[in-house]
Amino acid sequence: MEFDPQSLTYNDAGLIPVIAQDAQSREVLMMAWMNAESLARTLESGQVTYWSRSRQEFWVKGATSGHVQELVELRFDCDRDCLLLQVNQTGPACHTGRRSCFYSKVEDGEVRETQEPMTGE
Amino acid sequence: MEFDPQSLTYNDAGLIPVIAQDAQSREVLMMAWMNAESLARTLESGQVTYWSRSRQEFWVKGATSGHVQELVELRFDCDRDCLLLQVNQTGPACHTGRRSCFYSKVEDGEVRETQEPMTGE
Repeated sequence: MEFDPQSLTYNDAGLIPVIAQDAQSREVLMMAWMNAESLARTLESGQVTYWSRSRQEFWVKGATSGHVQELVELRFDCDRDCLLLQVNQTGPACHTGRRSCFYSKVEDGEVRETQEPMTGE
Repeated sequence: MEFDPQSLTYNDAGLIPVIAQDAQSREVLMMAWMNAESLARTLESGQVTYWSRSRQEFWVKGATSGHVQELVELRFDCDRDCLLLQVNQTGPACHTGRRSCFYSKVEDGEVRETQEPMTGE
């Protein structure tokens, strides 16, 4: 069956949540949002392109930082309201310079940071 | 620093998106939503408890099906507006009987199903 980005379920703002996972290590790198057009651009270019809710514009991941995400695989869930991408991530995915945005862990009721910012990227 | 579920950023409906990942295989199993109280219940019980948007009630994952999720690790992201759980999943995570909700893959513009429903669970 041919895939149509319009066939997915978007929220009231026209957005769908997107999980990006490292295609090799399987580490979950980040969660962001797409609209149908950013998904179409991602599929066409192979460069992961989100929709920035704060800036209200297309966000080609890494366009300014060089920390691009190359699309390896696209999946959607049973409700068609969430995407899962396997990506090749160059350098850090997180704006703090860490590999993953999920560097804060709750352990015994305390918050611990588990990653340092990457250097030399 | 002590962790306070209220310190996270919830959307206008008081909810935060939650990614559940298999603690062993690192497969992403599903995405669902929590409010602060369902997160507190999850931490207290060790049984992953979402907020059902359709039923508007607490949803102890697997309470009726037996396909429970035991919490192994809780992380939150740099913006404090998304959670990542490592879980021990009993049986399928998906209501269709598949291990993961992300069984639909887009390949060469076509949709392909990659998993069969589990049997004998």
